[in-house]
Amino acid sequence: MGTRAVGKKVAKVDVIDKVLGKAIFAPDYYLDDMLYIKAFRAPHPHALIKEVDISKAEELAGVELIVTAKELAELNNFGLIIKDQEILAREKTRSMGDAIALIAATSEEVARRAERLIEVAYEELEVIEEPLRAMEDDAPLIHQGGNILCSHNLKKGDIKQGFAEADLILTNEFRTQRIEQLPLQTEAGVAEYDPETEVYTIWAATQWLHDTQIDVAHALGVSPSKINIVQPIIGGAFGKREDVSVQIHLALMAKLTGKKVKQVYTRAESMIAQSKRHPMIIRIKSGVTYAGKITAWEVEVIGDTGAYASSGPAVVHQALYHSTGPYNIDNIAGKSYTVYTNNTYSGAMRGFGATQAAFAYESQIDILAKEIGMDPVEFRLKNGYQRGSITPNGQELTSSVGLKETIEQAVEASNYQQIKVERGNKKRGVGIASIMFGNGYGEGYPDHSTCQIKVEDDGTLTIKTAAADVGQGVLTLVAQIISEVLNYPIEGMNFLQGNTATMKNAGSTSATRQTLFTGNATKNAAENMLAQIHHHAFLELGAHYPSLEIKDGKIIVKGEDRGLTFGKLARLAKAKGQPLIAEGSYFPKTDVPDKETGFSAKNYLAYTFNTQIAEVVVDTETGQVEVERIVAAVDIGKAIHPQNIEGQSEGGTAMGLGMALMEDQIIEKGITKNPNLSNYLVPTSLDMPEIETIIVESKDAVGPYGAKGIGEPAMIPTAPAIINAIEDAIGVRIKELPATPEKILKAVKSKE
Amino acid sequence: MGTRAVGKKVAKVDVIDKVLGKAIFAPDYYLDDMLYIKAFRAPHPHALIKEVDISKAEELAGVELIVTAKELAELNNFGLIIKDQEILAREKTRSMGDAIALIAATSEEVARRAERLIEVAYEELEVIEEPLRAMEDDAPLIHQGGNILCSHNLKKGDIKQGFAEADLILTNEFRTQRIEQLPLQTEAGVAEYDPETEVYTIWAATQWLHDTQIDVAHALGVSPSKINIVQPIIGGAFGKREDVSVQIHLALMAKLTGKKVKQVYTRAESMIAQSKRHPMIIRIKSGVTYAGKITAWEVEVIGDTGAYASSGPAVVHQALYHSTGPYNIDNIAGKSYTVYTNNTYSGAMRGFGATQAAFAYESQIDILAKEIGMDPVEFRLKNGYQRGSITPNGQELTSSVGLKETIEQAVEASNYQQIKVERGNKKRGVGIASIMFGNGYGEGYPDHSTCQIKVEDDGTLTIKTAAADVGQGVLTLVAQIISEVLNYPIEGMNFLQGNTATMKNAGSTSATRQTLFTGNATKNAAENMLAQIHHHAFLELGAHYPSLEIKDGKIIVKGEDRGLTFGKLARLAKAKGQPLIAEGSYFPKTDVPDKETGFSAKNYLAYTFNTQIAEVVVDTETGQVEVERIVAAVDIGKAIHPQNIEGQSEGGTAMGLGMALMEDQIIEKGITKNPNLSNYLVPTSLDMPEIETIIVESKDAVGPYGAKGIGEPAMIPTAPAIINAIEDAIGVRIKELPATPEKILKAVKSKE
Repeated sequence: MGTRAVGKKVAKVDVIDKVLGKAIFAPDYYLDDMLYIKAFRAPHPHALIKEVDISKAEELAGVELIVTAKELAELNNFGLIIKDQEILAREKTRSMGDAIALIAATSEEVARRAERLIEVAYEELEVIEEPLRAMEDDAPLIHQGGNILCSHNLKKGDIKQGFAEADLILTNEFRTQRIEQLPLQTEAGVAEYDPETEVYTIWAATQWLHDTQIDVAHALGVSPSKINIVQPIIGGAFGKREDVSVQIHLALMAKLTGKKVKQVYTRAESMIAQSKRHPMIIRIKSGVTYAGKITAWEVEVIGDTGAYASSGPAVVHQALYHSTGPYNIDNIAGKSYTVYTNNTYSGAMRGFGATQAAFAYESQIDILAKEIGMDPVEFRLKNGYQRGSITPNGQELTSSVGLKETIEQAVEASNYQQIKVERGNKKRGVGIASIMFGNGYGEGYPDHSTCQIKVEDDGTLTIKTAAADVGQGVLTLVAQIISEVLNYPIEGMNFLQGNTATMKNAGSTSATRQTLFTGNATKNAAENMLAQIHHHAFLELGAHYPSLEIKDGKIIVKGEDRGLTFGKLARLAKAKGQPLIAEGSYFPKTDVPDKETGFSAKNYLAYTFNTQIAEVVVDTETGQVEVERIVAAVDIGKAIHPQNIEGQSEGGTAMGLGMALMEDQIIEKGITKNPNLSNYLVPTSLDMPEIETIIVESKDAVGPYGAKGIGEPAMIPTAPAIINAIEDAIGVRIKELPATPEKILKAVKSKE
Repeated sequence: MGTRAVGKKVAKVDVIDKVLGKAIFAPDYYLDDMLYIKAFRAPHPHALIKEVDISKAEELAGVELIVTAKELAELNNFGLIIKDQEILAREKTRSMGDAIALIAATSEEVARRAERLIEVAYEELEVIEEPLRAMEDDAPLIHQGGNILCSHNLKKGDIKQGFAEADLILTNEFRTQRIEQLPLQTEAGVAEYDPETEVYTIWAATQWLHDTQIDVAHALGVSPSKINIVQPIIGGAFGKREDVSVQIHLALMAKLTGKKVKQVYTRAESMIAQSKRHPMIIRIKSGVTYAGKITAWEVEVIGDTGAYASSGPAVVHQALYHSTGPYNIDNIAGKSYTVYTNNTYSGAMRGFGATQAAFAYESQIDILAKEIGMDPVEFRLKNGYQRGSITPNGQELTSSVGLKETIEQAVEASNYQQIKVERGNKKRGVGIASIMFGNGYGEGYPDHSTCQIKVEDDGTLTIKTAAADVGQGVLTLVAQIISEVLNYPIEGMNFLQGNTATMKNAGSTSATRQTLFTGNATKNAAENMLAQIHHHAFLELGAHYPSLEIKDGKIIVKGEDRGLTFGKLARLAKAKGQPLIAEGSYFPKTDVPDKETGFSAKNYLAYTFNTQIAEVVVDTETGQVEVERIVAAVDIGKAIHPQNIEGQSEGGTAMGLGMALMEDQIIEKGITKNPNLSNYLVPTSLDMPEIETIIVESKDAVGPYGAKGIGEPAMIPTAPAIINAIEDAIGVRIKELPATPEKILKAVKSKE
């Protein structure tokens, strides 16, 4: 039985527990004598806190402790990139849902009742709803230092010359909405504090154990070695679990009450108090020749990061860096602004700015193609990247550029030609969108991952990786790579629960980076383990390594009976003081972009390409859009797990469809109007079209076995493909998402 | 002070000791109470041993012990690929220089006198000089099992169809000579045996510590754990130190005498009793169109491996696999034979078969170009590999194919055009040759390397690598990579002396593999060390890794005073039971070629390209060739150490010039006629032309930082470039190397 698993559709390592209901998510944790924690949250988005009265609440039976900022003079701020979030609001609120008090009670019911007994006197301030208002000189400051948090630039070639060469110049403004990541499991956790060791242990899902560890440590003013973050099974993430949620509150209350504590967010709390996808305003001015060459591309991106920075500075400039699409353009000028408002803060969400950008550039590309009378496919193929292309950041793409293959194969698998020809039914349309997505943080951020493998005395493998499996399957990827290198069955591997006490940093499960980072770290660990096994077998068996064969947990002399099990080898090696433990890391370098131009010779390690073709039918009476079919052709270098690629592609497409047609967290004057799943609409299985995923494997990407990531790029082309298909069907161009029936009807009418 | 050293011309880590005379080579070892070992060697290449009389020699004062095969009934054979070499010849000799007896004496002088007192009675057998004779049915067998040791095949496309498409078909036979690798230091070593532990310790230079370890262990019938091979400073190698030489004899005599022992080969002994470059007969039949397309390529390679296999099977089939050069040819048929004769055995030498093949194919390419009236440069550019080309083994070259750049840049830097135009002086000529060379063993051989880095309590680094530095600079490469990853000065690194007792396998210093293998293993080790350092610093400094900066043996918080030295970190980590030790391996996979066709989708991990242009003046009165200038353009992906690349290029070119014009170990009836440096001519500094090396860096090779190896490809194009230049100068084509003045004069006369 061969066991090398790379390229095979093996069962996910966590699937059995999930299917049998044995998987323990954070809300499933029950510790003895737990207290339940509840935050009292501000109803006013921007207000001075004049007085907080907790006396009535304190009197409630079952309430053990209530604290406000007043009681906690020493607290530090927290936050992903900038420490601009208060653990408890002290002087003013900056957005609806800011925590003002923490309640510890013997039951969740008591805590909720106590919450209603807290009384706060506010002095309301002007609420900044719009980033354009926030950028005005006379706008009130939300934080010290100005409402424009940061801005970034992009410069390539000569933009004036580019416009001078154009036959046609078109400018459009596109707007994207505020979206909730909507992991099914809301924020939750339990915690305990050991006064002996002064160590806090917190069980709460996170996309990045070590970042949560240090954010909590900073907030509490202790060494990170005093914080242990333990990873439960994660009930979805999509960017929302990059920010700290319950962790600091839990740690604080565990110490103050001296008891174990638990906190579970309601859906409304999750929607109002945790991050969103950034709404963006993206203006693109493009120059093009009638022959179909794009000569100039000028872009402005304004991102509404809400009341707090979170990942905002990175999200918005990533939108800028991805705002030209996968097209060869010599002359580029761009600028982005990350702006504070009094809205619920924006942070990371699948695609991380590149999703918003893709809606804009793929709409613009379609508009340009139509204006010069060229087929959108031909226009994309004419301008699309190939090996040797230079990105807007000046990076030469020397390997793994499968864009054209994704376009060609998507067109072939779709009804593109047929729908274009059968122009009889005006309501049917087909749209295409192609995107690229840089894997990993790139940009000189010193990112890395580490994985450790141990052979136990019984020959099983124990694997330590802090990489968060948010459902995308990174642990299965790790298992497959180890299986491939050591020709060892996945069944014999035991994954330790993620924690910061015994594991090293694996970086975040975000930025579509785990395939590259933890994949390569794992391959390095496994190859070192293979070398260690060969070393000891060489000495024990007296056979040189080309004569040795490794299979199913044994190493044998080829063509002979002689061999050793992994277990025997582990015991022998341990007896020599050399236990079979191998650790591998991956610590690549990228280049920090130039501040003036964004130039970075190695901006990202690899780029994933995805072309989607959407086939839609639009009902011009109701404005309803039915997406009939989506073909997605993804260039992921090498499919380590083809079925997982398909799963990511389908899940991503569902999110993209929600973005295109329905999802919208509506905030008016800072107040979320639809913090629930009855008014916040997401696609259900009935909304989903048939999805066909085609895997393109372009060569020589730097990931393990030439793989690239798929997590985020899976969703990015969907919205523009659908919007382009709507335009194809009924001739109206939606430039502001989502394309609700109301918006479509309005557009149809104004066209008539 | 920045210390990242990749791409810089840093001092070699071993250069100071070498320059100051402090480097200890094997002949420099003196142990207390040593005995001196001398082998009595057969004068007859093929003879039955009827009687050995050691009695007179034993009586000599100072002789401690003499042994023959008779006294050592239990000895096993040894040998690199096939165990066909006897430690002491028992029944017959197979080549001149086979050892028949071993003498241990109190001085080398006594041992030599004893050697002359040994008397052996032989019955002489037919001596097979030529492989073509060896292949005949009635030839006497040198070993059981036939004189054809093995044969290999190469098949691609349809060779008949290829010839049918040709406008012109040409067949030529090329012959290469027997060459001595000629490391300046002859084989030597010391050994001791510990009866307590039963461990043999042998100090003797080798290109591959662990292979020598197991070859000696097998020969002595003990576990490899009982053999410790220690690496002295190596006085050159060039392939000659792949085979065992003194090691087994020393181990044996150390045990039998109970004393420390030493053995140093004379130059004649080294030339007669150790490996040579395989003489080869290479027949090429090519089809070409008048438009310059090569349509078919049929090749036969016959390699004379002498009396023993050594690396012969691999050398000869590597010649076959490289016999079509770096050219796109759809239809290929090839066959190779590795053949025993009674000559001194052939083994590994720089280029390992590919050198001989290149002389043949680059001569044939020039002949074809001339016949169809096309400039040789144009012909090569027209047919040369580019990204996407398919090798004769069926491997698609998806990355790092800089062949055309090497041709173009070599032409530009040379006087190629000028000499071609100035046709006035008929005696001046210019010749070009382009080659490719697969890095590493490839072909599915499970090759790997390992490197270990430790941070000591004082902050210095101790590095353990078993990679043999034969002067090419692999230890400097290791130091540069560690310096690059850890931003650490090379001065703070301490390389432990290579040995098998404490180090894991790094594979051989051969096959141009160490840059890829030990380079990548080192990078993996260093990146893991970087992760460990960040991990401990994160906990100690309470700072997240993007806020940390590593430099000159310290890790500091950016913009702050706080930091830790490596030494402090090492002590802290050790106190936690986690000493700062990182081990990295590189264990890539290649594909075993199909037996019938040689097909292998991943035959080698990377290919180095080298184009040389030789400018010569030929004296038609004396036949003397003066090489005036050689331009070498090498595509090595990325120059980790540009000066070392130049050094390898110049050294390789010197060897290639020797092969082209003078070197020739002449064996008649099995007897070497010139086992000395007065009759065996090699180039001196006066023979050397000006050499200009141009570094081409093609992208995305799999080595560290995109590097490829240079060791062997440095020499491969030189001989054909010179021979092509001679033809260009005086119109005679030398098809049998070396092109001595006699041969040139004879060719000139026969042309007249």
